Amino acid sequence: MMERRDFSEYLAQAARETEQALDAILPEPEAAAERQLYQAMRYSVLAGGKRLRPALFFATLDAFSAPRAPFFHFAAALEMIHTYSLIHDDLPAMDDDDLRRGQPTCHKAFDEATAILAGDALLTHAFAVMARPILQVPAERQLKALGTVSWLAGVGGMVVGQAAELALSGQPLARAMLDCIYAKKTGALFSAAVSSAAILCGASDVQLHALGCYAEKMGLAFQVIDDVLDMESTADVLGKPVGSDEKNSRYTYASLLGCDAARHAAQTAAEEAVGYLVDFDRRADMLRQFPDFFVNRIS
Amino acid sequence: MMERRDFSEYLAQAARETEQALDAILPEPEAAAERQLYQAMRYSVLAGGKRLRPALFFATLDAFSAPRAPFFHFAAALEMIHTYSLIHDDLPAMDDDDLRRGQPTCHKAFDEATAILAGDALLTHAFAVMARPILQVPAERQLKALGTVSWLAGVGGMVVGQAAELALSGQPLARAMLDCIYAKKTGALFSAAVSSAAILCGASDVQLHALGCYAEKMGLAFQVIDDVLDMESTADVLGKPVGSDEKNSRYTYASLLGCDAARHAAQTAAEEAVGYLVDFDRRADMLRQFPDFFVNRIS
Repeated sequence: MMERRDFSEYLAQAARETEQALDAILPEPEAAAERQLYQAMRYSVLAGGKRLRPALFFATLDAFSAPRAPFFHFAAALEMIHTYSLIHDDLPAMDDDDLRRGQPTCHKAFDEATAILAGDALLTHAFAVMARPILQVPAERQLKALGTVSWLAGVGGMVVGQAAELALSGQPLARAMLDCIYAKKTGALFSAAVSSAAILCGASDVQLHALGCYAEKMGLAFQVIDDVLDMESTADVLGKPVGSDEKNSRYTYASLLGCDAARHAAQTAAEEAVGYLVDFDRRADMLRQFPDFFVNRIS
Repeated sequence: MMERRDFSEYLAQAARETEQALDAILPEPEAAAERQLYQAMRYSVLAGGKRLRPALFFATLDAFSAPRAPFFHFAAALEMIHTYSLIHDDLPAMDDDDLRRGQPTCHKAFDEATAILAGDALLTHAFAVMARPILQVPAERQLKALGTVSWLAGVGGMVVGQAAELALSGQPLARAMLDCIYAKKTGALFSAAVSSAAILCGASDVQLHALGCYAEKMGLAFQVIDDVLDMESTADVLGKPVGSDEKNSRYTYASLLGCDAARHAAQTAAEEAVGYLVDFDRRADMLRQFPDFFVNRIS
């Protein structure tokens, strides 16, 4: 297994490559009237962040020995989708948060209308970016990868997860229901990153199924730790307000089980996630690092 | 030329086919927690509306003698994108409108958070729908069509047009600037409908360029008449509030030139639009009907 230091360097490298691609994808426009929209998009998408979804995408390419360079923009598109979801999530009508990645949220730095449009623009443009021809990748594969991302980001995953959380806010939830919501709200976009990379590499259906299960369990582990950190950490460390779940009357793993048992559940989910990679060889070792990293993160 | 009655029937048929596809694309989910999101999506997307973008898409298929059935879902996806833009446009932070297509706007019928998510879901799912394999259409073409739609709905068109309108709200604008905003805000999605159909049919670059110019001029004509109706019509006839432009301090063709001169400008743009179809044969006659219909509409 790889050292923790090497894994941190791997993530840092993935983040640098993603940010270079994002910077190139979203240049400052010439027309003054369009400037504010672009500034809001860039403000949110270039605000740091760990770039975990692009990193997962790259680690999946590694598992298939695929080169990274032809896919930088596809990876960046995944981060654009993630960022759009954060911008809309933070809106006053949603979680009403003022801080994100250590800086004012988009609607605080600009205004609500601009934040709505910046989210819409990032989401829409992500698909334009994913549709750009990629050298030596058959269009069928690319179409399937794009379709998978839009399904998992949309009614097959993320948006439905957010809507379900909203609909059930304030109600006590059984653990099985939380699992289901977390799989969609958080697991789906991890799955989108891993599955789209695998599809672009020509993965088999069996491989895709295993990677989907891996991502879903990992999403559960990640989200449970998110709940714990929302209870136990500080805004300084997280770069976003703590106590958000309580403020929004949200029933979580941490409130259901307590922080210790929640951490234990996350650890179990992380181990199960890695278990799904049993039929992959050593090239998938980087993918094997993520679940454990997610469980032990402090922000 | 075709009779006006036949054209109305053509539009009605296109609307029926689009609505059948939309109904099939968005079934009621089994999970109770997801029901409200789907209800909001269906509420807005099945609220009537003229289905002009799918109709333009179908008329373009006609111009290339392509059958319609394999493309119903693609056409429906265009309407999903149009509907998402209306839902977000109507939000309190944007135009803050209470009425749309003769019924309460999505955030009035449900709530703001649900309206934001329903818009996000319709937009995201539209791309999943467009990525579904289409029999006998090469994946390269489909990828290009999808990429064109996302470009024109996003930073290459609609979202940028809305952002520019917002940024310039309250400022007096020159006619050239209005033309530019209208081309993006309204023309771009017409262009997305026409161009994606043409790409799916294997149109040449010359044909695509002509159709893009046609759509842009038609968008101008459509939007100018929108301005006029916002001044001259009634909420009963329009199914949405009048005086919205004045409420939002929006400088329009109608406020710049007066309604009569604005109507004249729309008529000129409509004629120019048809002029761009000069190299298409009689199979494009239905496309030739749209600009005139747009100028003479009363709602």
